[in-house]
Amino acid sequence: MNNEIKIFSPATVANVACGFDVLGFCLDTIGDEMVIRKTSKKGIHITKIEGFDLPYEAELNVAGVSALAMYDAIQPDCGFEIEIYKNIKPGSGIGSSAASAVGSVFGMNELLGKPYNKTELTQFSIKGEALASQCEHADNLAPAIFGGFTLVKSLSPLEVLPIPSPDNLYVTIIHPQIEIKTAEARAILPKQVALQDAITQWANFGSLIHGLHTGDYGLISRSLDDVIVEPHRSKLIPYYNEVKTAALQSGALGAGISGSGPSIFTFSNGIETAKQVEIAISKVYGNTTIAFDTYVSKINAEGIKII
Amino acid sequence: MNNEIKIFSPATVANVACGFDVLGFCLDTIGDEMVIRKTSKKGIHITKIEGFDLPYEAELNVAGVSALAMYDAIQPDCGFEIEIYKNIKPGSGIGSSAASAVGSVFGMNELLGKPYNKTELTQFSIKGEALASQCEHADNLAPAIFGGFTLVKSLSPLEVLPIPSPDNLYVTIIHPQIEIKTAEARAILPKQVALQDAITQWANFGSLIHGLHTGDYGLISRSLDDVIVEPHRSKLIPYYNEVKTAALQSGALGAGISGSGPSIFTFSNGIETAKQVEIAISKVYGNTTIAFDTYVSKINAEGIKII
Repeated sequence: MNNEIKIFSPATVANVACGFDVLGFCLDTIGDEMVIRKTSKKGIHITKIEGFDLPYEAELNVAGVSALAMYDAIQPDCGFEIEIYKNIKPGSGIGSSAASAVGSVFGMNELLGKPYNKTELTQFSIKGEALASQCEHADNLAPAIFGGFTLVKSLSPLEVLPIPSPDNLYVTIIHPQIEIKTAEARAILPKQVALQDAITQWANFGSLIHGLHTGDYGLISRSLDDVIVEPHRSKLIPYYNEVKTAALQSGALGAGISGSGPSIFTFSNGIETAKQVEIAISKVYGNTTIAFDTYVSKINAEGIKII
Repeated sequence: MNNEIKIFSPATVANVACGFDVLGFCLDTIGDEMVIRKTSKKGIHITKIEGFDLPYEAELNVAGVSALAMYDAIQPDCGFEIEIYKNIKPGSGIGSSAASAVGSVFGMNELLGKPYNKTELTQFSIKGEALASQCEHADNLAPAIFGGFTLVKSLSPLEVLPIPSPDNLYVTIIHPQIEIKTAEARAILPKQVALQDAITQWANFGSLIHGLHTGDYGLISRSLDDVIVEPHRSKLIPYYNEVKTAALQSGALGAGISGSGPSIFTFSNGIETAKQVEIAISKVYGNTTIAFDTYVSKINAEGIKII
């Protein structure tokens, strides 16, 4: 058995419009790379971090904490070294911490002969993710591990449902380089919502799940409407409405806040439209002083993988 | 072309647990029969009503009002007589008024050579249903017309999504003969709900739609949980919790309030379990002074039909 593997750990989008807090999906053109190495020296050791300045102590590092959760559970007769080559900017809203959290446990699981299934890997990763986000959630972890779209039905017990999606569904992401504090993104949400709005939201969400199953792009488009969270959180993202309008006018099926922002995701039927959307939404921030990155990606059906 | 047809207009269940206000399904062992006859005499004339005491004036009769809505739209060079043989007790919560509302327009549409599609028929029927329920909704109309499960994504514009379901899904219904006033069933609902409960509800609803698509009975069972409406409305139905517990203990996948009650529906995998559930929940009301009816039915994939 190989003692070292290299991994591509993908970026992900959580809080997909009407699927706030439960639906996520996996990207394939952006992600971190990680090397996991089995060693005779016991314990979890982070030996290299490139790209961003993150702590080397395993107990303080997202990848380290999820690795330790799995390590403590299986108590193997070996240790692991972790190298992290980070491409996903922390705080961008496209699952930077989740990519780190799943990378270590996925790699260790491969090197140990796959003792754990995908749900169990997600469960270990939750511990690492909690270090970054101060709460346990699997919205980005699940799509990173399972690939495609995932619905996290419940956390306790953890139940992840892989949702199919049509082949030609593309994503355009724009990341305006502003900081949104997690605490602020949470505080801005209402504790109570109108029953009528909640009904609209689950009508849309059920319709979105049906549209993904049936590959009905029109229905996916009509269902991508978040009447609960977007009206509040979009206020934290400058030019959000302008970006959304530009995307829709360029043929996007819909748009929403990625995670808790500041990134914005849009869906398109086909890569050509997705690229046109990229041009259109780039112009919005191009006319401001806000720096930004953009990505165009197919839905990544495979998820995290050995490279 | 035939000038007279006889129709089976099925009972239906709306407000399916976490799919409150948007998901319904169609039954096949209980329904009304109606005869629709094309006449040279213009207008809509209700010529016979059996089973229950309902008004003969078209403008005051649910079947008459929906018939008039379609009649006014198409302005045909003929009239229609309607005979209603009512089996579904008004106020039972299994779509009695919806069966009447759809029967007349379905029959007229057949006799006129089908100028309207199912969504258009639902739209006309909404007018009749509104007479009975004092508000426009399509929760029972859509499954009666489309058959199977339907998700009413929106009323304006009306969009009905037919949702597939597994072949062996059976329904057991118990109708305790008590009266629930519509006004009271509405007044007991909160105007505001906790965001966290709303998220749980749409997680369950999305999971239910996925479970129906994939034929995953276990997931259907785990998704049939209504944290928003059932806690309030179940108080209006004596022995509701006892019925639900008895159903689940007999192998039912789940249970909920049918429409706004008082009927209670339960799902089972297979007719044998559905019959055992019938026995178990009958015992609950059998030990009280409350009279009751029960029904066991397959999901009716066809919906309203000519017989």
